Amino acid sequence: MKRSERLIILTSILVDRPGETLGLNDFSQVVGGAKSTLSEDLAIIKQALSSRGLGRVETVTGAGGGVTFTPALDGERVQEKLWELCGELSDPRRILPGGFIYMTDLLYSPIWAWDIGRIFADNFRAKKPEYVLTMETKGIPLATMTARALNCPLLIIRRAHRVTEGPAVSINYITGSSKTIGNMSLPRRALPLGARVVLVDDFMKAGGTARGMMDLMQEFQAEVIGLGVVVATAQPEKKLIDDYFSLLTLKKVEGKEVQIEPSY
Amino acid sequence: MKRSERLIILTSILVDRPGETLGLNDFSQVVGGAKSTLSEDLAIIKQALSSRGLGRVETVTGAGGGVTFTPALDGERVQEKLWELCGELSDPRRILPGGFIYMTDLLYSPIWAWDIGRIFADNFRAKKPEYVLTMETKGIPLATMTARALNCPLLIIRRAHRVTEGPAVSINYITGSSKTIGNMSLPRRALPLGARVVLVDDFMKAGGTARGMMDLMQEFQAEVIGLGVVVATAQPEKKLIDDYFSLLTLKKVEGKEVQIEPSY
Repeated sequence: MKRSERLIILTSILVDRPGETLGLNDFSQVVGGAKSTLSEDLAIIKQALSSRGLGRVETVTGAGGGVTFTPALDGERVQEKLWELCGELSDPRRILPGGFIYMTDLLYSPIWAWDIGRIFADNFRAKKPEYVLTMETKGIPLATMTARALNCPLLIIRRAHRVTEGPAVSINYITGSSKTIGNMSLPRRALPLGARVVLVDDFMKAGGTARGMMDLMQEFQAEVIGLGVVVATAQPEKKLIDDYFSLLTLKKVEGKEVQIEPSY
Repeated sequence: MKRSERLIILTSILVDRPGETLGLNDFSQVVGGAKSTLSEDLAIIKQALSSRGLGRVETVTGAGGGVTFTPALDGERVQEKLWELCGELSDPRRILPGGFIYMTDLLYSPIWAWDIGRIFADNFRAKKPEYVLTMETKGIPLATMTARALNCPLLIIRRAHRVTEGPAVSINYITGSSKTIGNMSLPRRALPLGARVVLVDDFMKAGGTARGMMDLMQEFQAEVIGLGVVVATAQPEKKLIDDYFSLLTLKKVEGKEVQIEPSY
């Protein structure tokens, strides 16, 4: 196989499987050739992708050696994306009765979900999360993509215990703004005790759902190492959660005007 | 930029954005060089990926020209994946009271979701779907990945109408096995009338949910061009839906034994 062909095949496999550690032996079999050739190929790919901020390739050599691709979005591109998202969300046709904003189409777009998931993943990666947790329903696509970018299992909290999920841990929580009582349920077997978990959600106002997720994680003795939301409202300023990061801050919805901007 | 570097960068961008048509002008800017060089590069990538069954690269030349990558899994790899999934699912520790099988961890794994999503996408692609539809909750990750592989918007039916989703169309449906009445709700603005839609779900027994999804689609005058489920039970043989495809057939759960096999 020619070098150009090898580089294309290796790149396509790596990019298609973010975060997975792929065995060097398997790779040798796919593209043929000596181990030394493979090492050279991977060095070229590593250099090309990192020079363009397209991601990081890490190689562990030796018998059990492997190679891992970590997708990236550079800071400038992130800012561009966030302003584009603000532009979309400030369209007055999105305003719903009660001052809510229709975001579903963006949250469910696989392209937006992948972009947002990668931004979340970049923020969490250094803390070495083992699981990505969300509460059904609207945050699931972006939590799926965050999990993909981190190569972690995804966990979804249900509003009610389901017979198809086996023994579960359930808690009640108080929604921050409307002060009603809700239920959260996660299968016991979904999460071992003491794991490192990141939480993601689409929207945060008072933070009641986030607080509930934290409380549920206590039942699993989990270490919550981060909480990311797409949109947080500026008011109330004091949330039920201190430590979170949001991509966008929703400042005001008034009449036909939406004020929303990147949070960082 | 050297050819090897150009090939790596182009491949990584294409594989990272399945189904999207990327402008040739944008590509020229990213990798530099003349249009003719870019065409040569894309021809090499196309050849390398298709020779290994890793996906299809299609180029439309001309002023508004673009290039699209379609991910693929070859038939042999699909069979391998399906048998692997059967192996996982027939572990007796997955059996729950009532003969249910715990599948959540597999359905929520980003790697499995992407593999299953690609298999679904391959089955639907020729019919040119415009939307991927699922019912909350367990099928959402794989529906997200199906939507990614097809580059279609994802739609999620909710069990109850939400204030954050605006005017909605709601129907009642009868669950096939337990004969209870459920509600399905989809925002009016999520789906234009007359669109081409594929339905995906994780599990089908009698087909009540699928029947409900079909009925809801009638309200949107949608053309349902396919229904895919991960697991369908062998019994009841007659479902409330005639035309569907399943990846796996669950034949029997009895005591500690699970009989499950690929459906095709």
